[in-house]
Amino acid sequence: MRAFFCRPGHPMRTHYCGLIDESLIGQTVVLCGWVDTLRLQSHVAFIDLRDHEGIAQVVIERDHAEAFKLAADLGYEDCLRVTGTVRRRLSINEKLRTGTVELLADTVEVLNAARDLPFALHEQPNEDLRMTYRYLDLRRPEMQRMIRTRIRLVQALRRYLDARGFQDIETPILTKATPEGARDYLVPSRVHPGKFYALPQSPQLFKQLLMMAGFDRYYQIARCFRDEDLRADRQPEFTQLDMEFAFVEERDVQDFVETMIREVLKEVAGIALDDPFPRMTWAEAMRRYGSDKPDLRIALELVDVAHALKAVEFKVFAQAAHDANGRVAALRVPDGAGMSRKELDTLAEYVGRYGAKGLAWIKVDDPAKGREGVTSPVAKFLDDAALSALLEATGACAGDIVFLGAGKWKTVTESMGALRLKVGRDRGLVEHAWKPLWVTDFPMFEYDEAERRFVALHHPFTAPKVDDIDELNANAAIAVSRGYDMVLNGNEIGGGSIRIHRPEMQRAVFELLGIGAEEAEQKFGFLLKALKFGAPPHGGIAFGIDRIAALIAGTESIRDVIAFPKTTSAQDLMTDAPSPVGAAQLKELHVAVTAAPE
Amino acid sequence: MRAFFCRPGHPMRTHYCGLIDESLIGQTVVLCGWVDTLRLQSHVAFIDLRDHEGIAQVVIERDHAEAFKLAADLGYEDCLRVTGTVRRRLSINEKLRTGTVELLADTVEVLNAARDLPFALHEQPNEDLRMTYRYLDLRRPEMQRMIRTRIRLVQALRRYLDARGFQDIETPILTKATPEGARDYLVPSRVHPGKFYALPQSPQLFKQLLMMAGFDRYYQIARCFRDEDLRADRQPEFTQLDMEFAFVEERDVQDFVETMIREVLKEVAGIALDDPFPRMTWAEAMRRYGSDKPDLRIALELVDVAHALKAVEFKVFAQAAHDANGRVAALRVPDGAGMSRKELDTLAEYVGRYGAKGLAWIKVDDPAKGREGVTSPVAKFLDDAALSALLEATGACAGDIVFLGAGKWKTVTESMGALRLKVGRDRGLVEHAWKPLWVTDFPMFEYDEAERRFVALHHPFTAPKVDDIDELNANAAIAVSRGYDMVLNGNEIGGGSIRIHRPEMQRAVFELLGIGAEEAEQKFGFLLKALKFGAPPHGGIAFGIDRIAALIAGTESIRDVIAFPKTTSAQDLMTDAPSPVGAAQLKELHVAVTAAPE
Repeated sequence: MRAFFCRPGHPMRTHYCGLIDESLIGQTVVLCGWVDTLRLQSHVAFIDLRDHEGIAQVVIERDHAEAFKLAADLGYEDCLRVTGTVRRRLSINEKLRTGTVELLADTVEVLNAARDLPFALHEQPNEDLRMTYRYLDLRRPEMQRMIRTRIRLVQALRRYLDARGFQDIETPILTKATPEGARDYLVPSRVHPGKFYALPQSPQLFKQLLMMAGFDRYYQIARCFRDEDLRADRQPEFTQLDMEFAFVEERDVQDFVETMIREVLKEVAGIALDDPFPRMTWAEAMRRYGSDKPDLRIALELVDVAHALKAVEFKVFAQAAHDANGRVAALRVPDGAGMSRKELDTLAEYVGRYGAKGLAWIKVDDPAKGREGVTSPVAKFLDDAALSALLEATGACAGDIVFLGAGKWKTVTESMGALRLKVGRDRGLVEHAWKPLWVTDFPMFEYDEAERRFVALHHPFTAPKVDDIDELNANAAIAVSRGYDMVLNGNEIGGGSIRIHRPEMQRAVFELLGIGAEEAEQKFGFLLKALKFGAPPHGGIAFGIDRIAALIAGTESIRDVIAFPKTTSAQDLMTDAPSPVGAAQLKELHVAVTAAPE
Repeated sequence: MRAFFCRPGHPMRTHYCGLIDESLIGQTVVLCGWVDTLRLQSHVAFIDLRDHEGIAQVVIERDHAEAFKLAADLGYEDCLRVTGTVRRRLSINEKLRTGTVELLADTVEVLNAARDLPFALHEQPNEDLRMTYRYLDLRRPEMQRMIRTRIRLVQALRRYLDARGFQDIETPILTKATPEGARDYLVPSRVHPGKFYALPQSPQLFKQLLMMAGFDRYYQIARCFRDEDLRADRQPEFTQLDMEFAFVEERDVQDFVETMIREVLKEVAGIALDDPFPRMTWAEAMRRYGSDKPDLRIALELVDVAHALKAVEFKVFAQAAHDANGRVAALRVPDGAGMSRKELDTLAEYVGRYGAKGLAWIKVDDPAKGREGVTSPVAKFLDDAALSALLEATGACAGDIVFLGAGKWKTVTESMGALRLKVGRDRGLVEHAWKPLWVTDFPMFEYDEAERRFVALHHPFTAPKVDDIDELNANAAIAVSRGYDMVLNGNEIGGGSIRIHRPEMQRAVFELLGIGAEEAEQKFGFLLKALKFGAPPHGGIAFGIDRIAALIAGTESIRDVIAFPKTTSAQDLMTDAPSPVGAAQLKELHVAVTAAPE
């Protein structure tokens, strides 16, 4: 294959390094690329010349005196242009795609030298160095592969949606501040003193308005922004595949995007996903896995055992077992009886982070022997009936360990769910497989104890299952929404819902969320207005592109599939952003800094 | 064609309104859409039901009592779901794609009513109303057509580039402030008090870094931001097709993108562009057209006539003719001799806006008769030889008018260039055609009289034609750059350059621009560093997507091809952005407002 850009008579290069082959033997070619490795011998120099397609071996013989002399001064990552003749290699290098041929150099030109490299490309340096010299980090073939996997993912998604009549529409980045959810990034207006734009947390309302505008089916690879305290794997700006459909119900959206994800992941990464995806209500997911995004690669499941422990004397168990808002859950770990005291202490400390006050356990030697057959600090608090009911409910076998959590429903569910994941990972119980899942029937609201009010579990535009406003008001605490999440291997890769499309229902939901009529008008007046003009039923979903790309590229970190990511303290170490700006510039924007710089 | 989303047994709709046809006659279908028009008669009601594919006529007969009764209460833009049987129309409506059939309604359901519409969709209201109710404005078929033209343009460009190995890579929106050029939008950092991100004016440096990272060929449909005082057709955020190529020279880039634009505009809009595009240096464009983006649809050209007027007594002409920085230019307008005093006054006022002190003119009755054959306020200042040399140089014929501009080169060139466009447009001299053009060989620098320093004509990363730094320093004022613009019908639709890829040259250019070593290090240290590690020769271009879309959609305003544009005062009238934000939020961001709100 000839290189893309070459004008007859004046080629900067004629071929790509990584693509020369036996069909070129005897021909004169011009290659451009970087010195990947360099071996100097007394009569010959070997250069592995690298471009984005791969590596070609360049041979400089001593009788090409000028080139040979130059070779002695070359260094790693020098950028070269080499003219020469392709010939067959004496010893084939089977690791290289070009391993049967090499380029006998005629002339070698240094297009640009590389000096004082901060790290060798054949090693992986620490992350700060990688970020500071990102352009060097990205030259490494592994980084090229991961970034290109992301590119192919996005291409395949676009192709899929373009072919099916979806309209790729750009929505604004300079938008109105939205009060719900994460913090907005703000942009002061120069033209309108004291006013600010906000960077969008998602194009949610714009895509709903596009449905009201009659575009029927929309998608966008959309940049979104959240000014949150970054956890290990969050970025202040991230990318989602944003989609919306008019005149649909939830199964229309789900069936369409399930097929899309299955076909695209097959095409891009050769991944075969279940057909159809398993489906689970939120309540079932929390009950069985202690998570709204269960990782089904781990077979362990929580078991509710309150029925077995209602009558025991041990108050921690009995109280929780009787509490309507309580939970007593068990997790059986096969072959876990050998866990050391230290391991168990570590696990107790771990669930403590999720609010659990302790972690009870029962090591099972012989379940048939009852009390005699187990080792457990809590066995003494359990009567024989309770113990055997417990062992039966969990299906405990000889050699297993059974963990018990008791307390408030939320604490037990979250801590036992976290325990399930940790034990599953630590003990190598994660199946090597792709496990997708739909989670549906989320609660409409969650009660925020601190703020003493309802907050939306998805967002305030999610439709409730009930159509009747009085019914919703009467049963708000247990209302179920029309939201749905797509989960893959324990990651929420997509989330969406059918939206509210009637103004009265939207007002009612705002009120339940503590957004009064006046505030609603001020913040969402345009939406309430738009709903009055024949808004169609509509719904959609958004997928996290960074996460999906990381999953299929086989990396833990989304930073590996973002060309220029930020650190966990939201800095760009390469360009040194954010940075101070001049007083004159701030004055023009009608703002002043109120805090001393760090 | 069946509608996309319909589950067996439970279809929200089965077909699109605009796509029902004779193959469906006798079948039961379900349509969803909006009431486009409504005619009630005593025994029958007719509804034109509109969706994104077009219009279907729905007929409700009186014997369907419930539906007929409901029809009486319907209004324009109500959102309906109609079930019925497709039948042949008695009188074919040839204006409609579906004009041979209609839907005899069985049931009609109002999915959402539209009440108190702010304007009728069949009229075009004033722009403020359109922007405030953008979702209604976008329902109009003309707006749907224009937005969809843009979508098809972007799709075709992506397809073209994806097929040719270009890597679509996202670059950050939260970036470091760049000092050169237009004002940045700033974003205060919460985590780093007193520091700010900037929204990118373009991904210029990131795409150069991607070339240094070995990605070889890059593109992105990139959002860019400029906080400028908006002229009629500028937007604070706009979209460009951003491209970069490694190991190329200017013709490689130009030839590639010329073919791309030709093929894509052919595919998307049936436009046939010259092959190859004409090419012109910047100097020639300024000389012949008084513009660096000449509209070649207008045949009029400027003619330099200094040689004819060096000896005349009239100082305005003679001085300019002798001044090395002066210019005397003529514009002959065929058949222009009939222009009224009022028209001429208007034109004089018009060129005044470009700094011209007046506008001399000569109406030609008979060029052979010399002084006797012309009418002109300035003829008395010209001797016979000058007058006849002037008429000869311009090729003036009977009935023509010749305009004359004299003064500083810049003022004459710009004002006469503007005059050429105005006269061409006012007199209907704009050919109905597509006229592309390459403009090349731009000056490297422009001298800013106010700031008494050089500024970059493209940007500070554009390579000069000379490779030698001493030569550049010695001849900076007349140095030519490796920049190039693609012009279409008088619009600069694309601009690019070969970039500087050696650190020494980049430092030299920074210095010529008055950016000292310290400032360069602080602002562009990362670039200067990156250039030291084997940066390849590279170059690229960026195309204005909004402008190209507007051109091929046949609209003057880029706002017509942006779903949610902002006004000329950078407001979103629909959502009311920008808007005030709370003090607590600002405190978190370590900023305070310094000006009283407007």
